[in-house]
Amino acid sequence: MSNLNAEGRHVVVRSIERADETVIDALAPIGAATVHEAIGRRGYLGPDLKPIQTGAMIAGSAVTVLSHPGDNIMIHAAIEVCRPGDVLVVTTTAASTHGMFGDLLATSLMARGVRGLVMDAAVRDTHDLRAMGFPVWTRHVSCQGTVKATPGSVNVPVSIAGKIINPGDVICADDDGVVVVGRQEAAWALEKSRNRLADEEAKRALFANGELGLDMYGLRDKLLDWGVEFID
Amino acid sequence: MSNLNAEGRHVVVRSIERADETVIDALAPIGAATVHEAIGRRGYLGPDLKPIQTGAMIAGSAVTVLSHPGDNIMIHAAIEVCRPGDVLVVTTTAASTHGMFGDLLATSLMARGVRGLVMDAAVRDTHDLRAMGFPVWTRHVSCQGTVKATPGSVNVPVSIAGKIINPGDVICADDDGVVVVGRQEAAWALEKSRNRLADEEAKRALFANGELGLDMYGLRDKLLDWGVEFID
Amino acid sequence: MSNLNAEGRHVVVRSIERADETVIDALAPIGAATVHEAIGRRGYLGPDLKPIQTGAMIAGSAVTVLSHPGDNIMIHAAIEVCRPGDVLVVTTTAASTHGMFGDLLATSLMARGVRGLVMDAAVRDTHDLRAMGFPVWTRHVSCQGTVKATPGSVNVPVSIAGKIINPGDVICADDDGVVVVGRQEAAWALEKSRNRLADEEAKRALFANGELGLDMYGLRDKLLDWGVEFID
Amino acid sequence: MSNLNAEGRHVVVRSIERADETVIDALAPIGAATVHEAIGRRGYLGPDLKPIQTGAMIAGSAVTVLSHPGDNIMIHAAIEVCRPGDVLVVTTTAASTHGMFGDLLATSLMARGVRGLVMDAAVRDTHDLRAMGFPVWTRHVSCQGTVKATPGSVNVPVSIAGKIINPGDVICADDDGVVVVGRQEAAWALEKSRNRLADEEAKRALFANGELGLDMYGLRDKLLDWGVEFID
Amino acid sequence: MSNLNAEGRHVVVRSIERADETVIDALAPIGAATVHEAIGRRGYLGPDLKPIQTGAMIAGSAVTVLSHPGDNIMIHAAIEVCRPGDVLVVTTTAASTHGMFGDLLATSLMARGVRGLVMDAAVRDTHDLRAMGFPVWTRHVSCQGTVKATPGSVNVPVSIAGKIINPGDVICADDDGVVVVGRQEAAWALEKSRNRLADEEAKRALFANGELGLDMYGLRDKLLDWGVEFID
Amino acid sequence: MSNLNAEGRHVVVRSIERADETVIDALAPIGAATVHEAIGRRGYLGPDLKPIQTGAMIAGSAVTVLSHPGDNIMIHAAIEVCRPGDVLVVTTTAASTHGMFGDLLATSLMARGVRGLVMDAAVRDTHDLRAMGFPVWTRHVSCQGTVKATPGSVNVPVSIAGKIINPGDVICADDDGVVVVGRQEAAWALEKSRNRLADEEAKRALFANGELGLDMYGLRDKLLDWGVEFID
Repeated sequence: MSNLNAEGRHVVVRSIERADETVIDALAPIGAATVHEAIGRRGYLGPDLKPIQTGAMIAGSAVTVLSHPGDNIMIHAAIEVCRPGDVLVVTTTAASTHGMFGDLLATSLMARGVRGLVMDAAVRDTHDLRAMGFPVWTRHVSCQGTVKATPGSVNVPVSIAGKIINPGDVICADDDGVVVVGRQEAAWALEKSRNRLADEEAKRALFANGELGLDMYGLRDKLLDWGVEFID
Repeated sequence: MSNLNAEGRHVVVRSIERADETVIDALAPIGAATVHEAIGRRGYLGPDLKPIQTGAMIAGSAVTVLSHPGDNIMIHAAIEVCRPGDVLVVTTTAASTHGMFGDLLATSLMARGVRGLVMDAAVRDTHDLRAMGFPVWTRHVSCQGTVKATPGSVNVPVSIAGKIINPGDVICADDDGVVVVGRQEAAWALEKSRNRLADEEAKRALFANGELGLDMYGLRDKLLDWGVEFID
Repeated sequence: MSNLNAEGRHVVVRSIERADETVIDALAPIGAATVHEAIGRRGYLGPDLKPIQTGAMIAGSAVTVLSHPGDNIMIHAAIEVCRPGDVLVVTTTAASTHGMFGDLLATSLMARGVRGLVMDAAVRDTHDLRAMGFPVWTRHVSCQGTVKATPGSVNVPVSIAGKIINPGDVICADDDGVVVVGRQEAAWALEKSRNRLADEEAKRALFANGELGLDMYGLRDKLLDWGVEFID
Repeated sequence: MSNLNAEGRHVVVRSIERADETVIDALAPIGAATVHEAIGRRGYLGPDLKPIQTGAMIAGSAVTVLSHPGDNIMIHAAIEVCRPGDVLVVTTTAASTHGMFGDLLATSLMARGVRGLVMDAAVRDTHDLRAMGFPVWTRHVSCQGTVKATPGSVNVPVSIAGKIINPGDVICADDDGVVVVGRQEAAWALEKSRNRLADEEAKRALFANGELGLDMYGLRDKLLDWGVEFID
Repeated sequence: MSNLNAEGRHVVVRSIERADETVIDALAPIGAATVHEAIGRRGYLGPDLKPIQTGAMIAGSAVTVLSHPGDNIMIHAAIEVCRPGDVLVVTTTAASTHGMFGDLLATSLMARGVRGLVMDAAVRDTHDLRAMGFPVWTRHVSCQGTVKATPGSVNVPVSIAGKIINPGDVICADDDGVVVVGRQEAAWALEKSRNRLADEEAKRALFANGELGLDMYGLRDKLLDWGVEFID
Repeated sequence: MSNLNAEGRHVVVRSIERADETVIDALAPIGAATVHEAIGRRGYLGPDLKPIQTGAMIAGSAVTVLSHPGDNIMIHAAIEVCRPGDVLVVTTTAASTHGMFGDLLATSLMARGVRGLVMDAAVRDTHDLRAMGFPVWTRHVSCQGTVKATPGSVNVPVSIAGKIINPGDVICADDDGVVVVGRQEAAWALEKSRNRLADEEAKRALFANGELGLDMYGLRDKLLDWGVEFID
């Protein structure tokens, strides 16, 4: 439980710290799976947050929203605190399949330079969102409309799929889903990711030449040690 | 429980009333989410009915089918009563993942001028269906074949995702899913939808200029009234 | 789409017609599965509505609620129109896991002679509800609290698991789940159910003596006709 | 794909081999989790097959059924080939939530000395089944009735949750679910299980005295080797 | 992302701060739903964490575990740091249905005075666990065994169902599920909960006398303001 | 339970028998749904194994893998035994959402002439896999990384969605999913599939001309026999 919304108060935190912009921009083209592996197989927001488009690869600073299900008033409150380079991350206090976000909100976010949306409920107007080139990762797609009747919070710690997202953490997302990197870990994560990319590049050439992971990683002895029997 | 199948009889109702054709045609390009909002956030058939294609936008009159799971005989019975401009809506008496519909049935429906299929079970031959340009919204895709061994009904009230669909109701479907509009509400729904479209168009320009929903909708005072704290 | 909430208006219908009280009372001890079979395998509200207790068998007249998810104001509105012998049936406009109902609302319903609750979202205070002897069938159990911020309707047609429930229909529920019987079909359903009970009683004695359904129902020839091979 | 139903024929295999009766009987009180561990963490039919009762512990020889979903004719065909000490295992060719089995079929199975049912679809009459003392493990409970319109097979290899069940394999089931033991492995499985029980008994006393698994299993060094940091 | 496992290191934190013991003990009999409401409808760990027993009501200090799926070595590591009055909270880095916990581990925890287990994967030996009186809330029940091959962490922040649990937070659990209260909020939560209990007690008497929530909460005017029509 | 891993041993079977290559190649363009129907509506691996691409149609010989969840060491072991024309089929001993396979492993498989992957867990690097033209059918897409810490088996019988896959069986996959054909049934399956294709071609022309299945299949009399009422 965070101090920010201690004693049940709803808050909108206007100012958050963000990671270094050049680091964030450098993380974008690396890919979510590689970043996830490089930082110790952490931060993946799970297989149920899917892109509505193919081919988008983004990184940005998390502005977080915690909403009542079926209510999108706090998304409006969050837009005001977004800055260029941010990614909006919307969660709900209980599971929701409401279409909380559509082309008008996307227009508003694009006008502020926001790079994409991570939605732990649903979006709608997906045909328009794709046409606008505004990238979205979402649990559901749904027409179901929302109200503006119950308060929530902006820029408090939230959680998706067992992973904690603090405001200002770095969001990396592509066709495989969404990975969160701790704000203060971003530079370290970039270095680790670049090392991994280089290592994968070298291995790719070997695999393409027909070499086996069994030999490259020394797995054959491991299997024999475990008593795995090789039968012809 | 409907009067039509009272006392457990299975029926095929050949003649149904339909909404005005020009109204139906005018609803197609508006989009399911807008229609849903315009009529009071009603009629959405839920996030689990997904299109197998992208970009299709249709509206048509519902011809409804209630089948035994794993049995597609009643789809054949329904085709005979379809007319140009209809949309076939298939449900089952219990949850089913059977591929009840494929390219042959689509050929038959296209020959009768049917505009699309809403399937609360599964379809197959999806590659062919996309190639044929026959739009489908379905809960599942599955090869699993069916039998023709148990009766059902055609043109009785059915229900998907807690929404009731009467024969002759108007089906509106696009990339966001499927919305049903009551037959007698169709003209009113069209008017409401057009009003909403115009309203959205005006707002879109404001949002693109950087104006905030928080101000446009007067939400800032609402949040303060509720005691939401704005923290810098 | 119902006429009652045409054009998007929310309504509370105070007076509904109910089935004959003696018929309803006679349906209670028959059991949901038997009633479902007797009326033509119809009206079952699906395997996801589960009792929170064991051994309860009830029948009563449906008072229906259609709520915004995460909001229980319409349950309060419904209580006023409940009469002794009713069963409250609560649905939401989109899927919800909120604990919309607890021991205080049960106290209120028991004070009005209501026989039980069918909840297509969640209940809480289950330990107390069991102690109070107030029977509940529900999709989920959840602590998650609700607000009173968005209107809905009372005594409009609703739908659960693809089955339509009109106000005044008869709800039959036991350990196997919930079955709805059309109000005007109730007397016919009772007769059919009694016939089935008698038939089952006769068969039970035969089965207990070791006779086979294969012979009793003449299924052996059917299997041979279909080409099923019996192999020793 | 089995030879038995090669080329798409449906078969009822009347005679199957079974494991030694004394071995089977000795496996019953050991418990499914222990047997599963003892044979190398194999054979568990997954967390979705749940008992409808508490406290039952059985073992028996599998008589297998492969049915069309929503059709229970092959259960009737299977009863004839059941012998005392058997456990009926029912699967369907596609996912099903139908209540394929109730108190009449249980009466018939009890008359033949069958020890229980494993159902990969649904059962009904659960209140009666508990009262009769006939143990059932099932994926769903549902009133939904079935037809007798489509053939299937009896005593062919079937599969649940990725585990293969051959006719005559030993089924062990308790509150934790269902485990299958290969017919020819049964004696070996019993010996292994008894060894494990003895080993667990010894450990239980140590744990009750406050000793730690970290020390008993030598895990502390493993953690340190992996670089896990212990922080005060 | 927590500082504690920054840069991907696995840690076992031996010493954590806990809330005041008398406060924790006083929270236990209040009930999870009431505590959740009292602190502002926060902290509920969702409807999928279910008790394996009925009637248990506990409160205790969270000792948290983050494990690799299918691996229970870190539970052993956690036991050493548990103290009387704690509740063990086990999560996995990805969704898991493994039976990570059984009667031996429960024996070990009981020997250390631990009050219960919250498991975001599965437990087994449920019959024994109930007999031992060790209360468990779990996502699944499963026989499936685990290995001890991959490190994890103890006493790092974890998350279940979108709620963050820090080591030393207070866990309240009963038949309705599990609620987490921030360690530093515990005394405030107890006061709020007692106020709510008193308030509910007063209302219960009114409801039992037939008074309506519609009147008690002034909801009738709210509905009329919203335009809800009351129809006779 | 297979003999191959009797008594809990893990095995890697290097040599398997395969079906005739020309038969396999001829099955590829027929389509999974047609093959499934032609062989008696068998072998479909269910609606949850979905392609990550559109338009791929393949057939090949199954090389099977049984892995510990969250561990991909046995995929490396399997690659060594793959031959041109094979399809790798990966299963886990319990449900898993781990991304066990990515572009490096695909590079390795393509170097050996493997035609595709059927994954009963998750893959990652989907953008690269599509770009490489390596076809994949998978239950999930996930970044979540795996370890190499626990043994499994290669080329043992495995099972997905209740269907058994023996090493060397023929895998047919397209946009509708995956169908398995028994190795020794392959030639028979091809003949049956070709007959069905010819039959469908003839029917397609009739349907396109507006003829009804109701007449073509003689279903009208069947419906009347069952007592279905046709109402105008």
